[in-house]
Amino acid sequence: MEIILAEKMGFCFGVKRTVNETQKLVDQNLIDAITFGPIIHNNDVITYFNQKGITYVNNLEELKQKLKEKKINTVVIRTHGVRKDILEEIKKLNLKVINGTCPYVTKVHKIVEKMSREGYPILIIGKADHPEIIGVTGYIDNNVPYFIIKNEEELNQIDFSKIKKIAVVSQTTEKIEKVQKIVSKLISFIPEVRYFKTICYATDENQEAVHKLAPNVDIMIVIGGKSSSNTKKLFEIAKQYCDRTYHIENEKDLDINWFNYDDKVGITAGASTPDWVIHNVINKIKEFSDILKNNTVKV
Amino acid sequence: MEIILAEKMGFCFGVKRTVNETQKLVDQNLIDAITFGPIIHNNDVITYFNQKGITYVNNLEELKQKLKEKKINTVVIRTHGVRKDILEEIKKLNLKVINGTCPYVTKVHKIVEKMSREGYPILIIGKADHPEIIGVTGYIDNNVPYFIIKNEEELNQIDFSKIKKIAVVSQTTEKIEKVQKIVSKLISFIPEVRYFKTICYATDENQEAVHKLAPNVDIMIVIGGKSSSNTKKLFEIAKQYCDRTYHIENEKDLDINWFNYDDKVGITAGASTPDWVIHNVINKIKEFSDILKNNTVKV
Repeated sequence: MEIILAEKMGFCFGVKRTVNETQKLVDQNLIDAITFGPIIHNNDVITYFNQKGITYVNNLEELKQKLKEKKINTVVIRTHGVRKDILEEIKKLNLKVINGTCPYVTKVHKIVEKMSREGYPILIIGKADHPEIIGVTGYIDNNVPYFIIKNEEELNQIDFSKIKKIAVVSQTTEKIEKVQKIVSKLISFIPEVRYFKTICYATDENQEAVHKLAPNVDIMIVIGGKSSSNTKKLFEIAKQYCDRTYHIENEKDLDINWFNYDDKVGITAGASTPDWVIHNVINKIKEFSDILKNNTVKV
Repeated sequence: MEIILAEKMGFCFGVKRTVNETQKLVDQNLIDAITFGPIIHNNDVITYFNQKGITYVNNLEELKQKLKEKKINTVVIRTHGVRKDILEEIKKLNLKVINGTCPYVTKVHKIVEKMSREGYPILIIGKADHPEIIGVTGYIDNNVPYFIIKNEEELNQIDFSKIKKIAVVSQTTEKIEKVQKIVSKLISFIPEVRYFKTICYATDENQEAVHKLAPNVDIMIVIGGKSSSNTKKLFEIAKQYCDRTYHIENEKDLDINWFNYDDKVGITAGASTPDWVIHNVINKIKEFSDILKNNTVKV
């Protein structure tokens, strides 16, 4: 078996930054801390911090409860960010706040805040129930309408008849091809379409690397959390080129029956997948390779 | 033969407006007038006004010369508009100025003026040597760069490396499909793309009518000036569906050999084609139909 890694994959700048900040708390034994939401979409990382004593709360009520129980003195905001009103509420509490929001997500917050204040209705391309998008909507001025769509078809469900101008952003992990289709359609009937490229560079690079790698391998292994949007996008892209594409969270999900002894195996990983998980996956596949090779030789 | 007219075709709002203004001068015998450039891209109309005594000048020098010769007291600005500096020079002369600039072109002037003042480099999709585009460039503030491209491929010739935001407009007669391709490409690498839909509604409607008609006829006749951009676009669209598509200026260009007696003939006309030319074309084709039918019956 030959294992080929995507040229770019794994931890992005934003994830690395927040995980490092949280790791610092562990290193300094400042574990009277909690994260607001799972800090990144990776269960292995969440479990790791959990074992070190840093767990998470799901909402403001849970946070207030923890504070009341005097169990915490520090809160780390998840990489995906939170709504503006929630952040303001958190800042009012008697807590040290470490804002782990990815700077690329903060950029989206600023764009929608400014554009909505200037009277632009907002179109967000992404998943309405994703924490990043929930956070982004919390920065839109109430005076303008906003719409969230996850594909081109959903444009048809929106009444644009009174919309003369619109600002468009996307989830930072969105696929550019989808965004292009949607913007193309919008510009055919809306007088002013103001598009901001909010897809982050890590998403661009990781996706581009899969476009290059997937056509040249027999099997693609995509490593990342099951809730991780950017990992799902990498899976979708790989699948376009390679039928035998599998999305796994870690090495435990691997199945030797997926592999042939002479496969070229491509590997990529989402932006929230830590290196150690990638290494474990590689080692496991090497083990499989040895087993399959020996079996083949025997036969 | 069956003749089917496109649902929408011929004189658009802007052309009708300017031709009417000029006709008023004829009606009132105020023919000490001249047009600045050919008022519309249609030789039959130009010839008509010429015969009535209203000719045109090509530039400021020619205009000043005519004025010096005391031959004129009124100038009509062409539908395509002129550069801002030229218009200002014209207004300084001792002449009555009738501004025939199409309001949809004036809208483009205002957009590029405002956007360039706000620091947006400008991308114009259209033909650099077309009078409309020459006029539009004259409204761009000198402090920003601007680019004119006529297709997607020409994007590659531009160095966008320092461009963080861009405002995009098109010639009012541009094809939306081409604009969509170009904007799709731009949004993949420029952080902010601010697109203004400057394709005018008449272009939209006339083009859409050809998309509907051309697939259902045997031969398409596209009537309009050879320099008329919007007519050329109608020709291109018709040609996609119908191999036997011909671009003619008027009935004199028609050739009986193009037709079969049992053809379904589709007709469309550019925004600068007057009704009388369209009627002449229809009548000529009817004549052909009779000739071909009789010949066929005889055989």
